[in-house]
Amino acid sequence: MDKDQMKITTIAFDGDDTLWHHENYFSETKARFHTLMNELGDYPDAEEQASERHIANIPLWGYGVKSFTLAMVETAITLTSGKIIGSDIERIMDIGRSLYEHPVILLDHVAETIQALHGQYRLLLITKGDLLAQEMKIAQSKLAPFFEGIEIVSEKNVETYERVFKRYGLKAGEVLMVGNSVKSDILPPIMLGAQAIHIPYYVTWKYEQVETTETEQGKFMVLPDIKELPRALQEIEKNSI
Amino acid sequence: MDKDQMKITTIAFDGDDTLWHHENYFSETKARFHTLMNELGDYPDAEEQASERHIANIPLWGYGVKSFTLAMVETAITLTSGKIIGSDIERIMDIGRSLYEHPVILLDHVAETIQALHGQYRLLLITKGDLLAQEMKIAQSKLAPFFEGIEIVSEKNVETYERVFKRYGLKAGEVLMVGNSVKSDILPPIMLGAQAIHIPYYVTWKYEQVETTETEQGKFMVLPDIKELPRALQEIEKNSI
Repeated sequence: MDKDQMKITTIAFDGDDTLWHHENYFSETKARFHTLMNELGDYPDAEEQASERHIANIPLWGYGVKSFTLAMVETAITLTSGKIIGSDIERIMDIGRSLYEHPVILLDHVAETIQALHGQYRLLLITKGDLLAQEMKIAQSKLAPFFEGIEIVSEKNVETYERVFKRYGLKAGEVLMVGNSVKSDILPPIMLGAQAIHIPYYVTWKYEQVETTETEQGKFMVLPDIKELPRALQEIEKNSI
Repeated sequence: MDKDQMKITTIAFDGDDTLWHHENYFSETKARFHTLMNELGDYPDAEEQASERHIANIPLWGYGVKSFTLAMVETAITLTSGKIIGSDIERIMDIGRSLYEHPVILLDHVAETIQALHGQYRLLLITKGDLLAQEMKIAQSKLAPFFEGIEIVSEKNVETYERVFKRYGLKAGEVLMVGNSVKSDILPPIMLGAQAIHIPYYVTWKYEQVETTETEQGKFMVLPDIKELPRALQEIEKNSI
């Protein structure tokens, strides 16, 4: 990271796969969809096609479970040339519903790290997906009291971060964003002059995968585990004005 | 309304059916679903059942078009005892998609009224539904520049308004909420001590219908058209401290 940077006052966290498990449930769901479709016929790449459909639908249907459920139904109809019957569609929708109802399980060391940083820094949560689904996850996570602000957004691009920083009267340089997606959590804030720490999750959704240049890589830190965050912050503080 | 009330500094508007047409598109969609289902069999109350299902699903799937699309699919499966085929489900999903893609048409006198009030009052937009769908509507409405704040929420209850008022540093007494739903736009803000003006839309979604007591009715004004709002505000000002 650059030397002579501003003092960090605010740490903004991503939610899914940064604070709580998420992508693993999607993977499980895709596996269940694969199994179901292959009971009905020979569809070796059913789950791959559902993913593609989900991604193609994002501009219209957005992120989240409802959008993915609709994509699985659409894929099943396409693969069976419209011949799949309603009771099998119902089973697909049940798979979608159970994804919605999965428990919220915090990643290791999240609770104690957030608690430790609370009070030292202003903490924000910036998460994307279905409004209601995200609210339910936040409530179940029991982390809400530690965040001064919670922003559920439909997309995480430069404009989104600009809007959020403005809302809280923040200069980009005083913000550190922490998240598992280089595309959504790291590159847009560093474009604005914020700092960012990438904590990879063990699965990355294809849509969130990006190539980064060496210059970009030089602009953010990668940590293997959120428990390293307080120590990393001390290092950053040492380099700040 | 009460005398001796605070001066209004802020007017908060609902979106769907207050600023732009919405429920009429849902009504059209239900009619199309009815027609489609009655090509497949004898289902005289298909659209009624889809509405009921949609309402029952709100705690899980929330408001909005995706949730309603899923409800239509579920209803079709139930009514046909699981026998409906995929190509007909696809047609139902197309009906849902076209609802998503409908144009945003402002109600009469909205544009000029919002423009006239902008500058005199702080204007907020508080709307519920799918995050992405609401964002698209707001963008298409071209009204965003007139609002100091835009809040897309999953539910409009007392807690929601409390949170929004707090976010903007507002006392309830200085806020006037304007909307078409007594249940979502009128009763919760007046519970908090805000003022409210009900502008009915010509169709009210069943879920938004409530009985009001005479005491409640005495606490808010009803206007037939948003163009009456500036005059009503002058009246309110006369009664304020």
